[in-house]
Parts: sequence; structure tokens; C-alpha cells
Amino acid sequence: MKKKHVHGGDIYRYPNVLDFSANCNPYGMPEGVKAAAIKALERAQNYPDVSCSALRRALEQAEGVPFDKIICGNGAADLIFGLVLARKPKKGLLMAPAFAEYEQALASVGCQIKRAYLKEEEGFVPGEDFLDEITEDVDMVFFCNPNNPTGVQAEREYVRRVAEKCQVCQAFLVLDECFVDFLKTPEQSSMKPYLEEFPGMFLVKAFTKKYAMAGIRLGYGFSSDSQVLKEMRDVMQPWNVSVIAQEAGIAALREEAYWQSSWEKVREERDYLLKEMKQMGLQIYGSKANYIFFRGPEGLREFCLSQGISIRDCSNYEGLSSGFYRIAVRLREENEKLLQAFIKICNSSSVARAELLQRY
Amino acid sequence: MKKKHVHGGDIYRYPNVLDFSANCNPYGMPEGVKAAAIKALERAQNYPDVSCSALRRALEQAEGVPFDKIICGNGAADLIFGLVLARKPKKGLLMAPAFAEYEQALASVGCQIKRAYLKEEEGFVPGEDFLDEITEDVDMVFFCNPNNPTGVQAEREYVRRVAEKCQVCQAFLVLDECFVDFLKTPEQSSMKPYLEEFPGMFLVKAFTKKYAMAGIRLGYGFSSDSQVLKEMRDVMQPWNVSVIAQEAGIAALREEAYWQSSWEKVREERDYLLKEMKQMGLQIYGSKANYIFFRGPEGLREFCLSQGISIRDCSNYEGLSSGFYRIAVRLREENEKLLQAFIKICNSSSVARAELLQRY
Repeated sequence: MKKKHVHGGDIYRYPNVLDFSANCNPYGMPEGVKAAAIKALERAQNYPDVSCSALRRALEQAEGVPFDKIICGNGAADLIFGLVLARKPKKGLLMAPAFAEYEQALASVGCQIKRAYLKEEEGFVPGEDFLDEITEDVDMVFFCNPNNPTGVQAEREYVRRVAEKCQVCQAFLVLDECFVDFLKTPEQSSMKPYLEEFPGMFLVKAFTKKYAMAGIRLGYGFSSDSQVLKEMRDVMQPWNVSVIAQEAGIAALREEAYWQSSWEKVREERDYLLKEMKQMGLQIYGSKANYIFFRGPEGLREFCLSQGISIRDCSNYEGLSSGFYRIAVRLREENEKLLQAFIKICNSSSVARAELLQRY
Repeated sequence: MKKKHVHGGDIYRYPNVLDFSANCNPYGMPEGVKAAAIKALERAQNYPDVSCSALRRALEQAEGVPFDKIICGNGAADLIFGLVLARKPKKGLLMAPAFAEYEQALASVGCQIKRAYLKEEEGFVPGEDFLDEITEDVDMVFFCNPNNPTGVQAEREYVRRVAEKCQVCQAFLVLDECFVDFLKTPEQSSMKPYLEEFPGMFLVKAFTKKYAMAGIRLGYGFSSDSQVLKEMRDVMQPWNVSVIAQEAGIAALREEAYWQSSWEKVREERDYLLKEMKQMGLQIYGSKANYIFFRGPEGLREFCLSQGISIRDCSNYEGLSSGFYRIAVRLREENEKLLQAFIKICNSSSVARAELLQRY
């Protein structure tokens, strides 16, 4: 049964709460990005550059991927929908749990969906089972590394095996690396060096999380197959990336100091949260990026809301049941508030805890 | 044969020219819109509101269409692509000439395209011929009023007949009113009052031209059929409209004084251009909105470029041959520069003219 999907980061339905439900860089949008966006407004009476040339040149420099292998979109989701529409797969393979928009995109072209359920007892780590599910009848495979919502990181050797199996089965591989830069060793994890080897692989990334630009909307993707990129451009509107997003993206790529400093601090804070949460007896899985995935008592989201904190209830993800949650890593003071809320539940006697959780 | 489409407004390939090729309000983006966009940047680290609630409330007030009948998009094009993907028509009917993205959107779902060619000898005005082309086998009809690039305005009584014929034939009608507010009598031209009568009609509009916001990307649409809007949301990414676009749109709707004043001045300038261009012997068609469509000598675009002016060569529109052009109405001083370039050609002897046009 398809579950109703509720997104994280909905500050519009829950204003004035401390938002741990969206996984963005807690250091906020760099000032240089804001300044570039403001400057871009002076030219925003004009249509955007349909080819995103300057932005792609900047990405070529920053990512080391040639200009003509890069495509930009109105967020990573725009590229995922565009790619699915371009390829029109008949049968798609998804992990469960996974980012809900993969399924939405596949459904938009009437694609049949096959799910490979990740197992809690295996820590939600994909293994041989997943490889076995890549069969001749599958046209498109989605793989997210590190996975969202679990934060499980697959070894690159394993991802290579996924790509090889896809190549053998002629299944197109959509590799979502939106969170890869938050890993300890992004350069050893990304499949970016293997674009030429796997022309049937599309690698998607975003500015959203890394530079806290979710509201500006900017994603990009790589493919070594120029025909794939052409097919995508053919089915996507020409002006999908705003003037502001293009300029903000170029400015973001110059923010190396901001990124290095926030990346290190987010990793420290994550380790702090992990230590404290483990001490509370919370069962944690994956969590190799800038968010933590765990099992907690039912009703925890409602209780946190009562404390002015929004966390992501993951029970509506396909493949998960109630009791699974995801939190973003935020700043120390904010993380402490969250831990205080957790402690109220975890340090209570089971009777007092049940009473607390039921109240909300 | 499908013609290669080159867009107007490409200031990136032709920098430092006076751009008459894009049809935006020449008074530029209102300061209130810029201020709202800058303020919105403070919240752009968050995801946008997926339901565009505040913007739709503002549109409800401004357009007099109920909140739940409104959908917003990343420009009008985003909604056109989303609607086509939602409906997946098998056979679509287009006028020729027409906005090229209708065809691109239909092609994205593999839709067969039937074209109703408008005739120069009838001033490119759609008549009984077009109505006759709406047949049982057609699933989707695109109608643009006033049409782009011609600026031909169809009488509302005629558009009602189109809608009625579509209803009889069970063809979905996409009515593009992106330029309707530039007409002399928008309220007597728009089909907005008939949304309830024609649930199989989707009416699309944009902020792009009216408020000179092309680079921000914001369009919207109306349908009285909640199922149609639900189907569109199902196939479109949830975060398609940026935080900046949502806030800029709300601010734009407050700019009544800017709009009234620029609307009147643009109309005056259009009449001035029309008078001067007619005196030069240029054959003008339609041109009821903020742009002028005419027949001129071949090579005129290249000649204008040599004078630092970009005009829209319409020869790559399906249904048009070389010698058709479109210009935006701009400010007096700019319009005079354009007329000076035209005069160099039109007042030359035929030998001198041929020599001038060939040079570029």
C-alpha cells in the first residue's frame, strides 16, 4: 500500500518551532550567497540563461567534471523528474526506505515499482539481496548514497557492483549523492570518477543541504552520455533555473572556507549527538551524514512538538513502521534543547513515559 | 518538419544589446518586488511552502478566483509541462504559429501533434477552420489569447465556442492568458469568469511579463476541476516554486499603481510604434498586447544586431516563413532607437537596402 507522504522541513504548518526535520547546513546560507542573490535581482527582469553556462563553468571547476557533462535543475527533484520523463522506464527498482520523490517521479510516467526492503536487523545496509533485485526486466534503479533517511553509507566497491549489475541488465542507474559531501571521506565515496565507465549512470547532487539554500532551489547532475542530457533538456522547460539560483550557485562554490568549517563542526556535533543519544539507549542506524536516524518511543514527534521542536517522523516511509525518526544535526545550543526533550522521555520510568507520550 | 527553436530574450548570447526580443514590462521589476525578494532571502535556507498558501491567498484576492482552484508553478511553462504530464494526451491540437513550449511539452509525453495553420491573408486570426480542427480524436487543445507571437486577440465569444467545442469533443483546453492583462479590456477578454462552466479548461497566467520578473520564475493557473489540480500536483515536484518567487509574487500583486501606470504607458508607446512602423510601410498583424508582430525585409534581425538592437526573428516558428518579426514595446527613447534602425532600411532605395541587409 502506498503511504501518504508528509515532508520534513514544513515550517509553514509548524511555525516558531526549532526545525530538526530538514537536513540543511545549520550554519545557514553564506553571506556571499545572499549578496550574490541580491545582486542577481538587478538582472531578474530578464529570462535566465537556458544553458546555465556560467554556473556549469563554475561547477566544472569545483567538481572536476567537464562542462558538457553537467546539467542544472530547479533543485535535485527537478532533475529526477526530468530524467524519469526522458527515459520513461517501465519498471523501476527502489530501496525501502528511500526518498519519496523517486517513487513520485516513477509514478508520473506510470512506471511499475519494485521495492527492495532494507532490513533493520542488517542495519538497513544494502547487500547481496539488493544486487539480486537488479534484473533484466528493470529499466531504472535508484540508489542514494548516503541513503536518506537512514544515513547508511554504502562502500564505493559496493556501489560499483550496483553500477556493473545495472550495466549488465541495461538498467539505468540514478545515483543520488545529495549528501555525499557530508561524509567523512566524500572523495573516496562518490562515484564521480566513474562517469565515463558507466554512461548509463546519472549522478545527482544539490546545493540545498550543503549551502542551506533549500528555498532558492538548485540542483545539478552529471552524465557522460550526451544523449541522456539531450533527452532531459528535450522534456524539461528551458528556463527551469532562475537567475537568482544560477548566481547564488556560482557564489556558493566560492565558499570553501564556510564549507570546510561548517562540515567539521557539523561532524563534531553529530558525534556529540550520537554519543548522548546512545547513552539514552536510543537505537541508532547509519547516520554517516548530517542527520541521525534512530528508533525511539512512539509519540516522540508529538512530544517534541509540545516542547517547540520539530523532528521527522519516518513511519510514513515505505519500509518503516512507527517508532523511526530522523533528526538533522544543528548547532550545539539547539542540539542540547533536543537532547533535553529526549531525556525527559528516556529517563522517565516506563509508566511516566507512557503518560508523557500520550498527553500529546 | 520540426523547426529548431531559438528563444527570444537571450541576453547571454547577445550581451550589451538593447533587447526587444523578450516581451516583458519595460518599466522593470517594481522596487516593492525587489524588496520582498531580498527579505525572502532571509528565509531561503528553508524549503519553500509546498502548497504556496500565502501566494494563493493573495492571488485569490487579486484575481477573484477561489484559493482551491489555483495552482502555482516555476513559470507558466512549468505548469504547461505539468499539466501535459498529468493528462498524457495522445493527440494535441496547436495553432501555428504558437509558443514553442506547447509542442515541446506535448512531445515530452510522446503526443501526436496536429496543427491548425493560421493564414496571413486572414491576419492570423483563428476562425471556423480552427473550430473544425477540434475533433473527437483530439485530447488536448492549446489556445493562446492574445496569441504569441502574433498578438492577435480572439473575441471572448469565439473563445467560448472553442471551449464548447472542446467540451463536446472531450478535449482538454489549455488556455494561455499570459498576455491578457496587456489588452485594452482584459476583464472583457479573459475566460476567467467561465471556469465553473468549463471544468475541462485550464487557464494559465504568469508574473513574468506583467511585472518584469522573468528571471524569478513564477506562473499560476486556474481550474475548477480539483481532480485536474490534484493530478498535476501528483506529477510535479513538491518544491517547484522558490521561497523568493512566492514572496515576490505576493509583493507584485500589491503593485497596482505600478501596473496601471505602466500598462497605460506601454499602450501609448505601442500605438506610437504602430503608427511609425505603418508609415514605413511595414505590414503589421494583431499586436493587441505589449508586442508588435510584423513582416519586414529578410535580414532585418542581423541588421538590427549590427545597430546594437536585438529583435525576435519569427521565421523559426512553425507556420511562419522568413521575414516575420516580433518586437517588444519598450520605453520611448529605446523605441526611437529601434525606429531609427528600421528607417535606415525602409527609407533606402531597394538597391541600397539590399546592400545594407547583406552586409550583416
